Amino acid sequence: MSNEQIKRRGLLLVLSSPSGAGKSTLSRLLLEKDENISMSVSMTTREPRPGEIDGVHYNFVSQNEFDDLVNKDGFLEYATVFENSYGTPAAPVEAALRDGKDVLFDIDWQGTQQLNQRVGSDLVRVFILPPSKDELLDRLKARAQDSDEVVAKRMAKANAEISHWAEYDYVIINDNLATAEAELFTILNAERMKRARQSGLSDFVNDLTKD
Amino acid sequence: MSNEQIKRRGLLLVLSSPSGAGKSTLSRLLLEKDENISMSVSMTTREPRPGEIDGVHYNFVSQNEFDDLVNKDGFLEYATVFENSYGTPAAPVEAALRDGKDVLFDIDWQGTQQLNQRVGSDLVRVFILPPSKDELLDRLKARAQDSDEVVAKRMAKANAEISHWAEYDYVIINDNLATAEAELFTILNAERMKRARQSGLSDFVNDLTKD
Repeated sequence: MSNEQIKRRGLLLVLSSPSGAGKSTLSRLLLEKDENISMSVSMTTREPRPGEIDGVHYNFVSQNEFDDLVNKDGFLEYATVFENSYGTPAAPVEAALRDGKDVLFDIDWQGTQQLNQRVGSDLVRVFILPPSKDELLDRLKARAQDSDEVVAKRMAKANAEISHWAEYDYVIINDNLATAEAELFTILNAERMKRARQSGLSDFVNDLTKD
Repeated sequence: MSNEQIKRRGLLLVLSSPSGAGKSTLSRLLLEKDENISMSVSMTTREPRPGEIDGVHYNFVSQNEFDDLVNKDGFLEYATVFENSYGTPAAPVEAALRDGKDVLFDIDWQGTQQLNQRVGSDLVRVFILPPSKDELLDRLKARAQDSDEVVAKRMAKANAEISHWAEYDYVIINDNLATAEAELFTILNAERMKRARQSGLSDFVNDLTKD
């Protein structure tokens, strides 16, 4: 018997970061390279954009359906942004965890706080930081014609997100993408090995020590 | 800036296991391959055996010196075995942690419980299990001429140690040495990246977000 054969409970991996720290790229690499983790699909009341597929990019629902699930306490986290509601339904995530599957969340500090209150020890929170202030500024100046005002606004938003770094379990400084990716896998694989998640260990130890 | 350049607090890595689960081999590999971790040197009142060097294998002291340190609360853990006392002095370990160095402990469940009460969040506890009961029996039958009684005694001792597996943060089933070694490094490297140990992050984030 080896650890990989031991039944375990899945985990929720949260990645948060200011805009431009490489979170989307790291999420994509994780999903491409690891078969046991999948992206959480949010529910939203906004209209689908061209190319967006119901059930893949989002579950598109009416405001009534959304409010119904809120009233049933059926969301792990939800928020309203510009009159549209977004949320993570609890049921599919809880089914995945029971089945030993991991779920990736690409959410901000507010969603992370809500998740933390709801799921506690299933959560692994990773915050991704840019390597320096200059690098952050470069990445926020997406286009040469951006006004100073626009860049200053983005910087203020980035700083507001960064101010919550200490609410996370791990912090990755994304100086080099390959290093950051390796660090993310190291964290994910170590967390999978936590004794408390390896629900099959109890039976294994019983077999090991019985007369 | 990258995570490796961030000042961090060291950690205490505890390896425990029943006899014959591969703990000594894994400890040796860790010490050989990782420059930032060193073995904790115990203090003992027993006589040095041929080849044992004071300050390397043990710090050899008199019973009076040992009792003195006990009275000053100067041990992280200590125990008396067959009239000899053994213990881990706190001062060198605490200096290592402040200096960002990790310390390896090869101790049983009783020492681990004492350490846990004393150092708490600096501690990373890993328990190593054999892959099966047959394998455990094979390893305990060190010599063909061992009597059934001797083997049964060793098995009882192994089972007593195994019964404390759930007091550890991680459990590694040592089915294949290379896999177990990789798992141990994954755990060590992830724990090093924990936000709470990366004491230099606070200054780094200040630089990142200042005007």
